[in-house]
Amino acid sequence: MNIGLLGFGTVGTGVYEIINKRKDFFRSLIGKDLNINKVLVKDTTKDRNINISKDKLIDNPYFILDDPNIDIVIEAIGGTAEAYAYIKHALTTGKHVITANKAVVAKHMKELMDLANKNKKAFLYEASVGGGVPIIKPLKQQVTLNDIEEIKSILNGTSNFILSKMIREDLEFTDALHIAQELGYAEADPTDDIEGYDVRRKLAILSTIAFKREVKEEYIHCRGIRTIKSVDTKVIKELGYTVKLLAKASFKSNKYYLSVEPSLLPDDSFYAKVENANNLISIIGNDIGELKFYGQGAGKFPTANAVVSDVLDILYNNYQNYGIDEGTYKLCNNTDLVKDRYYVRLSPKHTLSDYVLKVVKEEKIADKIIKTGDHIIFTTGNIELKKINSFINNVKESIKDEFYAAIQ
Amino acid sequence: MNIGLLGFGTVGTGVYEIINKRKDFFRSLIGKDLNINKVLVKDTTKDRNINISKDKLIDNPYFILDDPNIDIVIEAIGGTAEAYAYIKHALTTGKHVITANKAVVAKHMKELMDLANKNKKAFLYEASVGGGVPIIKPLKQQVTLNDIEEIKSILNGTSNFILSKMIREDLEFTDALHIAQELGYAEADPTDDIEGYDVRRKLAILSTIAFKREVKEEYIHCRGIRTIKSVDTKVIKELGYTVKLLAKASFKSNKYYLSVEPSLLPDDSFYAKVENANNLISIIGNDIGELKFYGQGAGKFPTANAVVSDVLDILYNNYQNYGIDEGTYKLCNNTDLVKDRYYVRLSPKHTLSDYVLKVVKEEKIADKIIKTGDHIIFTTGNIELKKINSFINNVKESIKDEFYAAIQ
Repeated sequence: MNIGLLGFGTVGTGVYEIINKRKDFFRSLIGKDLNINKVLVKDTTKDRNINISKDKLIDNPYFILDDPNIDIVIEAIGGTAEAYAYIKHALTTGKHVITANKAVVAKHMKELMDLANKNKKAFLYEASVGGGVPIIKPLKQQVTLNDIEEIKSILNGTSNFILSKMIREDLEFTDALHIAQELGYAEADPTDDIEGYDVRRKLAILSTIAFKREVKEEYIHCRGIRTIKSVDTKVIKELGYTVKLLAKASFKSNKYYLSVEPSLLPDDSFYAKVENANNLISIIGNDIGELKFYGQGAGKFPTANAVVSDVLDILYNNYQNYGIDEGTYKLCNNTDLVKDRYYVRLSPKHTLSDYVLKVVKEEKIADKIIKTGDHIIFTTGNIELKKINSFINNVKESIKDEFYAAIQ
Repeated sequence: MNIGLLGFGTVGTGVYEIINKRKDFFRSLIGKDLNINKVLVKDTTKDRNINISKDKLIDNPYFILDDPNIDIVIEAIGGTAEAYAYIKHALTTGKHVITANKAVVAKHMKELMDLANKNKKAFLYEASVGGGVPIIKPLKQQVTLNDIEEIKSILNGTSNFILSKMIREDLEFTDALHIAQELGYAEADPTDDIEGYDVRRKLAILSTIAFKREVKEEYIHCRGIRTIKSVDTKVIKELGYTVKLLAKASFKSNKYYLSVEPSLLPDDSFYAKVENANNLISIIGNDIGELKFYGQGAGKFPTANAVVSDVLDILYNNYQNYGIDEGTYKLCNNTDLVKDRYYVRLSPKHTLSDYVLKVVKEEKIADKIIKTGDHIIFTTGNIELKKINSFINNVKESIKDEFYAAIQ
């Protein structure tokens, strides 16, 4: 069994180190050494702080993808276009493929699984959702015996770090973001994390498995956390809640509800205890009830551990490729199905405070007004997401900004 | 693929119903029907509220155990001696065996696994720990790539229900126990649950897998919850804690620490949120970090779901039997290794309160005395379990009863 490793960054080196560390175990399992024969890097001459012979390092991916001696390709370069092309090439030439690349999996899951199934090879992606938390495989297993009714998850370390920091230290969003960037929790361009796009990819993957339909990212209603202010977190705390970027999916009467949005969770809930880069994934099945999975959603060794667990499944010949139903995915009107209570802050433009408050009262949208003046803060009764969205849209011209979040 | 089902109680009927409900799935998986051919019951003539043809019901287990057409035996009769004999017989005659019987697994795990390995059959027991929570298989998977350093779990619904009830409603132990019995959470003889024996069996199973050594029940230090009083739960709440019966195992410098004992958990911890019959299992691996698994630790369909997931693993040919290391299990002096702070209540015999308080002060065991008089309540600094045990033993003659719990 020979492995070709595409990429030698954090995850790639982690995979290399774990496989080396467990050398004896793999030898006893397959009767010979498990080799990482070739590693794709950008610069083969660069000095690396890792014990690897330089002749393993290559800078042409096709030395791996077209090498008949390579059985398993591990894609750890990230990005989308190239990673997708390499994965497809590897599966086409009859190799097993493992990836941690959620963007590629979310976008091309069905096509790549079909290709793997056709060639009777594995296409595995345990590390693409939840980092070190084993969730893809347990979910595939539960799906065979359960109708999955609901998924509710915290899946993004960056936004969770920022929100934890804001809540604990009464910081403004931009300050918390800067700290996250300094500590390496957020990238220079944090868009994917704070706008919810990263979570949306992960929810697309989980929902596709859970509901046995191809759930595309664009089916998922997505709102990020960029407009939250310390005035929000203060009120949220006073109300006995915390705030999280929550991924939610439910399937009822053949209709789907899929959303990523800021959500208020009671202070004494499991969700409220999930700090920093940890992830929590809850699934509800009709027979099994609620299961929760918790662990490190990112980090070198947790993520690499998930990748190597996929290697193990290939060695054990234990990789039933989950086949997505051929039935067309029925796109529901997302915002029709589920009603939530909402926390809403509207910050009116100069001199418009009285006017905005009047609209709030006339529209009868608030069930409790908490604050008026520069920031009008209220909670609603149970209301459809499309109604709250359309209300916000109607007052948009009169306000500087707003923040709203579903109350769970 | 034919199944023989031993026992048709809660779990047995659950298994029968789930397999029937998923008939189409199993047919598409194995290309023919998955049949439960025979079911062992005590009374074949009894009317049952379930759709099964009477000729499937038998009252002689050997009609299943010696039937060459039966491939998989599911043991769901409970008890120990008979269940053990049937499982052994089935494995010896080359059948796969699935059981939810923690008592048998805890006691005979190594022997039964060796037997299964010898005959290249499966011996699976996912439902024996954590009910519906998938933990046995995920733990086996993590163990291959991680050195497991710690297990910390809530594994018993009965004791957890009683403690939750006492904390929430300021009840005395016996009153909470009666309510548990009336609601079916506790059996007429609740000894196994409230003395921690049930948890000890589950911890023996988890530790055997996690540490790759045969961990016997008798190696595990075990104290139950019978002596807890409402005076304890009141003080515990004031201190910002809740109380749980906690199973703990750790492995450091080739030494083991294994205990089941009442433990104080901070009000804002995950553990404190585990109510009633739910279970929480936390494991820490050297690479993966901490993983937590949560779900229903009992109940007909969750438990049956776990049993049927074992059936699936057999159908998928996906049942690597975990081989326990041949090395002798090194019994550590359990109480040597780990130090905890303790919460201690001593209730002195009539007129001995001053004397007991004097001993507490002389022995310098308390770092903070919370209450004196009829109940002397104090917390300790970090102290070895054997020291606290021996202190309690020394004052035994002077007290009516006592309750003590590790502060986590």
